[in-house]
Amino acid sequence: MTYCVGLKIDRGIVFAADTRTNAGVDNVARFKKMTVWDAAADRTLVLLAAGNLAISQSIVTVLNEQIEAAEEGEETLHSASTMFQAARLVGNALRAERSANEGAPGAKAETFSASFVLGGQIRGEPPRLFQIYAEGNFIEASGDTPYFQIGEHKYGKPILDRVAAPTMRMGEAAKLLLLSFDSTIRSNLSVGLPIDIAIYRNDTFHIGEEQRIGEDNVYFRALSEAWSDALRRAFDEIKGYPDQT
Amino acid sequence: MTYCVGLKIDRGIVFAADTRTNAGVDNVARFKKMTVWDAAADRTLVLLAAGNLAISQSIVTVLNEQIEAAEEGEETLHSASTMFQAARLVGNALRAERSANEGAPGAKAETFSASFVLGGQIRGEPPRLFQIYAEGNFIEASGDTPYFQIGEHKYGKPILDRVAAPTMRMGEAAKLLLLSFDSTIRSNLSVGLPIDIAIYRNDTFHIGEEQRIGEDNVYFRALSEAWSDALRRAFDEIKGYPDQT
Repeated sequence: MTYCVGLKIDRGIVFAADTRTNAGVDNVARFKKMTVWDAAADRTLVLLAAGNLAISQSIVTVLNEQIEAAEEGEETLHSASTMFQAARLVGNALRAERSANEGAPGAKAETFSASFVLGGQIRGEPPRLFQIYAEGNFIEASGDTPYFQIGEHKYGKPILDRVAAPTMRMGEAAKLLLLSFDSTIRSNLSVGLPIDIAIYRNDTFHIGEEQRIGEDNVYFRALSEAWSDALRRAFDEIKGYPDQT
Repeated sequence: MTYCVGLKIDRGIVFAADTRTNAGVDNVARFKKMTVWDAAADRTLVLLAAGNLAISQSIVTVLNEQIEAAEEGEETLHSASTMFQAARLVGNALRAERSANEGAPGAKAETFSASFVLGGQIRGEPPRLFQIYAEGNFIEASGDTPYFQIGEHKYGKPILDRVAAPTMRMGEAAKLLLLSFDSTIRSNLSVGLPIDIAIYRNDTFHIGEEQRIGEDNVYFRALSEAWSDALRRAFDEIKGYPDQT
């Protein structure tokens, strides 16, 4: 399975994605699910992918081929004038890929499903964050819901719901995403380290950090232990249900 | 939807079940999902139900009718000599009910699904806890996995995994289940208050507490707030990701 999150705060957007893929529990592999477009001076885009790996890889390739082979006036991720247009390009690529596959011999339509989180900034507008559904349509994050999760989202959601706030510092937002991953990784074997994390600060048009956090990452290990300890302490501090037998 | 948990510790078993049912988000109602058999002096049984309400209600009724109409030598929940036999009775009732429904005109087999947690004690053996699958087969809780969840289990699982311990006091175990419910209720609208909670202490053959926890329950409100505060404090105590922009 997969777990990816994008969280938009006042200062920027933080992205995180795990790297474990599996076709059944006996076929587990590692693939990067985060793609960053950071070469152009006027834009930075980050795409997180969940679902069928053949589909999501194809779509990244198609989007890249569009950039390379673009004729004058053709819209690509490098020429789109808004993030909304960029999200539409991803949605269209997804629709094309799904229809190409669904007619294949022996194909089951629901197998060729994928969904995405797309975030970043194009000069001329503020940073924006989108979730692109398996059908190719999409929604945009707002103040009410500042984050999108795809894949195995449930275990890591309670902490996001409780702590996410627009005024957080970037380092706090990254810590929050890593805690959300820690809860997910503990409860679902099909989500696993390493985690790719990318931190985009408003109006920099450049990814400040794109870092891979593996088993031996000192910060993540300390965070994971500190969180376990803190939760147990917090649990102990609360009065027991009034029946202390 | 539904959320039910049974947690077996050294001192006994704690059960909790929400009471919200829904057929679509525009058809929400309240039904008790916890059934206690506590009349006989030699046994206490608690059944938690998730899934199709028509099926789970029928099964409770069938099990009760079996008790009332039992001929000499016929096995019912009141005469079963072990919890294993009791679990088998529930599984068999579930199979019978499902096959009776699946042949019905317009019926889709998967609609008639239900699953159960059954726990308690019958004199002559220690307390036991079972999870009964939609197919009618079942598994028993062990030291490695001391709890069973049915329904919307994901949001409330991380806290169970981190805190559940066989040496807990009953009041602590009840507090843990309520925290697990608090996380679930916050994240899934289809799980809602009130919560039914039952605390069974080993060798008492009587339910010590069977209590309904509603919106106005002082303990649950205090617990919910204390937990939110403690989580936020715990979050603040952990060092930020090394990027404090």
